[in-house]
Amino acid sequence: MAETATTRRSRLTPEREAELYEAVLDLLREVGYDSLTMDAVATRTRSSKATLYRQWGGKAELVARSVRHHKPVGIAVVDTGTLRGDLHAMTTRQDDCEMEQNSSLMRALGTAVHSNPDLLAALREWLVEPELEEMRQVVQRAVDRGEVRADNRAIDYVLHMIIGAVVARTMIDNEPPTQAFLSSYIDAVVVPALVA
Amino acid sequence: MAETATTRRSRLTPEREAELYEAVLDLLREVGYDSLTMDAVATRTRSSKATLYRQWGGKAELVARSVRHHKPVGIAVVDTGTLRGDLHAMTTRQDDCEMEQNSSLMRALGTAVHSNPDLLAALREWLVEPELEEMRQVVQRAVDRGEVRADNRAIDYVLHMIIGAVVARTMIDNEPPTQAFLSSYIDAVVVPALVA
Repeated sequence: MAETATTRRSRLTPEREAELYEAVLDLLREVGYDSLTMDAVATRTRSSKATLYRQWGGKAELVARSVRHHKPVGIAVVDTGTLRGDLHAMTTRQDDCEMEQNSSLMRALGTAVHSNPDLLAALREWLVEPELEEMRQVVQRAVDRGEVRADNRAIDYVLHMIIGAVVARTMIDNEPPTQAFLSSYIDAVVVPALVA
Repeated sequence: MAETATTRRSRLTPEREAELYEAVLDLLREVGYDSLTMDAVATRTRSSKATLYRQWGGKAELVARSVRHHKPVGIAVVDTGTLRGDLHAMTTRQDDCEMEQNSSLMRALGTAVHSNPDLLAALREWLVEPELEEMRQVVQRAVDRGEVRADNRAIDYVLHMIIGAVVARTMIDNEPPTQAFLSSYIDAVVVPALVA
């Protein structure tokens, strides 16, 4: 039947794709990037390795897209009318539990990229670049409104300020990153550096 | 002989201690924190495990003190007369190669602390607290000079800004942290947030 042939050639359903990404993240948390194998992903998700390689090319891209899929909706879509409002809208996209899970994942991947250049490239393509692009839009709106000077040098460092603080939080303060921490940090550091 | 008894009871010589710390850092880079064993440290340094445990209590403290020993001289001793000068003096304590080595070590340990509470406690005691205390002195001098307002909320986040940026640098920009990057970041973010 023509329909069956089409189905057979088609991409995975969104539900199946989501299920697969969740399984990859579970495996990542269990064994870490270096010990994660495409065999284990295939077994856990009852897929063929051929399917995995055809759809994602390899482990690095599969992992990067799994993390991307898990991320909350971008902030650029939230236009509150002020820079501070837009940045704060970011902190409420994840609850504290999700924030800790994500930062733990990013710490582990942040270590793994140093011995896996293909992982670094995939994370930059699927996570960092989209995140930078969204941040550019948020800042551009603030520049257009006259809130931020176009030549403010902190513009290039918004992600460094924010990601860095979340990643360093536990070691410096012996507390997990939370919405309350991030809100306070945005008001104390990010907004003053940009609006200065 | 009395002298021999004294020698036998005495602590390690500074040279021997330094040699031991370097060996611990080498092992850390080779196998990572979780796979590092006191047996391996004893073998590599031709020490007895009894000596290691007597002098350092355990793996977490031995690792934290090895990293501490390797760190450059503190910044609080450098008093240039301005906040900006003091912060920049920090960036020249390590050359770019040392900076990348240290940040790679801190990334690996930053991941390990999440499954090793004793490592977190030891790093906080031997690295974070001394670093926070030094930063407090640098900022207090700036407050005393009238450069920084005593109620500026960014004061609590100076280490988050700096450590975070160094740690996040590679993933965001696909470049290692360097003196030039840190200098630029200090001028664009840290000084404006504090002097705002």
